[in-house]
Amino acid sequence: MFNQLGVIGCGLMGGSFALALKRGGLVRRVVGYSKSPSTTERAKKLGIIDVAAESALLAVAGSDIVLIAVPVAATEGTFKAIRHLVEPGVLFMDVGSTKRDVVDAARRVLRERVPSFVPAHPIAGKEVAGIQHADASLYNGRQVILTPVQQTNPVLVQKATDVWSAVGAQVLKMSPENHDAAFAAVSHLPHLLAFAYFSAVMRHPSGRDFLSLAGPGFRDFTRIAAGDPAIWRDILIANREEVLKQSARFRTTLDALEHVMKSGNADALEDLIRTASEGRAGWQMGGGRGTTRQ
Amino acid sequence: MFNQLGVIGCGLMGGSFALALKRGGLVRRVVGYSKSPSTTERAKKLGIIDVAAESALLAVAGSDIVLIAVPVAATEGTFKAIRHLVEPGVLFMDVGSTKRDVVDAARRVLRERVPSFVPAHPIAGKEVAGIQHADASLYNGRQVILTPVQQTNPVLVQKATDVWSAVGAQVLKMSPENHDAAFAAVSHLPHLLAFAYFSAVMRHPSGRDFLSLAGPGFRDFTRIAAGDPAIWRDILIANREEVLKQSARFRTTLDALEHVMKSGNADALEDLIRTASEGRAGWQMGGGRGTTRQ
Repeated sequence: MFNQLGVIGCGLMGGSFALALKRGGLVRRVVGYSKSPSTTERAKKLGIIDVAAESALLAVAGSDIVLIAVPVAATEGTFKAIRHLVEPGVLFMDVGSTKRDVVDAARRVLRERVPSFVPAHPIAGKEVAGIQHADASLYNGRQVILTPVQQTNPVLVQKATDVWSAVGAQVLKMSPENHDAAFAAVSHLPHLLAFAYFSAVMRHPSGRDFLSLAGPGFRDFTRIAAGDPAIWRDILIANREEVLKQSARFRTTLDALEHVMKSGNADALEDLIRTASEGRAGWQMGGGRGTTRQ
Repeated sequence: MFNQLGVIGCGLMGGSFALALKRGGLVRRVVGYSKSPSTTERAKKLGIIDVAAESALLAVAGSDIVLIAVPVAATEGTFKAIRHLVEPGVLFMDVGSTKRDVVDAARRVLRERVPSFVPAHPIAGKEVAGIQHADASLYNGRQVILTPVQQTNPVLVQKATDVWSAVGAQVLKMSPENHDAAFAAVSHLPHLLAFAYFSAVMRHPSGRDFLSLAGPGFRDFTRIAAGDPAIWRDILIANREEVLKQSARFRTTLDALEHVMKSGNADALEDLIRTASEGRAGWQMGGGRGTTRQ
């Protein structure tokens, strides 16, 4: 049970965390801060936060748990704004989709206060952003990856594990490097490919006609292309090294498929497709439940 | 109202067409043929066909409507098997996902009997194949593209339009060339990309771990990677010229996105993503309803 939650960034992720803690009776009071005062006011009117703070630092003051839920690129600035109140024993977490850059920023800015920061990535979201879509169940049944480093206070890692578990999430631990490689592969690269593919269709001279003929396969394949531009800009730049590496691997398998198409080698093409098809048919979401990776 | 439907290829597509015509009271009797006698037997036991024919030719004999529902690569062989009974006034259709190759095969094999053949592509399917998944509602609310050529008998084109409309489908007409370009863009290329992407993840040394972390975005993006290998082998080879052309366009937009990622130009990256994101957010499936394209 926490006394006060400080939410920096009252959006979908921060608002949903506040609602989940409130619903679970895990916190007495929520203080929120957003760059735009109208957002903070709206969060208060919606009953998601109890008190609107006038700065990030004021949202930290008196809190024993703090969630930094700002776009990835704004994390370092937030650390700078709050560093003087980053006290031992207070649990600080973020929700960023990339972790190496966040850990680097924490080391640069927080320095000796780094042990209080437990980097977190909840695998949850919606195609819509904003506090008005906050949902107490957003994290229920989802995975949350913690990427503590050597200096991170293990007591706070345990507290982080407990609070995410209490809102229904499955907690995994990984290194920031493994995290970023894994999410480049299963999230960031697919987004990049979906953006590129949808743009290519739109730019085709007959693109409008094509789009009117597209069916359910297209609908599902391109759903993630509707992702928020500012969020995905930050993620793709923050994790570009890994994403570009995985994209090169993707191009190699695409080359192999196109090569057998060109040569008309039907058997080889069928074999390549079968590998993917059987792999996908045997895959189930959440196959990692209950396991912990370092 | 038809007297007898001949179904060549008792699978998901052929079986669903037979069921839909039966349910609509549009046919008195269904005669079915499949390469494997056990499939034909099963179709009969399931009540999808009334009579099991011992050859494709025997499924045509006495029929006033014939649906060729075999894999695209088997269409030419089917034309050869039935050509002596391709009579004027009898409606012959296929269900292939590519149309230029089918029209070419029809011209080569059927010659002066080409007017009886109305090339058709119902935009419907499931991730599972086989007669046991046949569904009388498969075509309800879906689009069916007809690609008649100059010689095609307009009376049969009208009959084809009527029968697909009667089972609840929306009928569009296009040239075989426009059809193949459009479906390369919105169906064949996404499948190729999904096969390539899923294979690339599987082949990564940490692929198993990555897959256990994948979430709902990945699930939707890769759903079509589970497509049937034999069907997609045939489609990708039959329409390879267009698919490779569209893939090159895709690579150009992917190059542009990667270029701005590498240069760290966040504004340019956001602009490129925004184009795709807003385009996708504004897209609705079935936007082509009620229109006809040549």
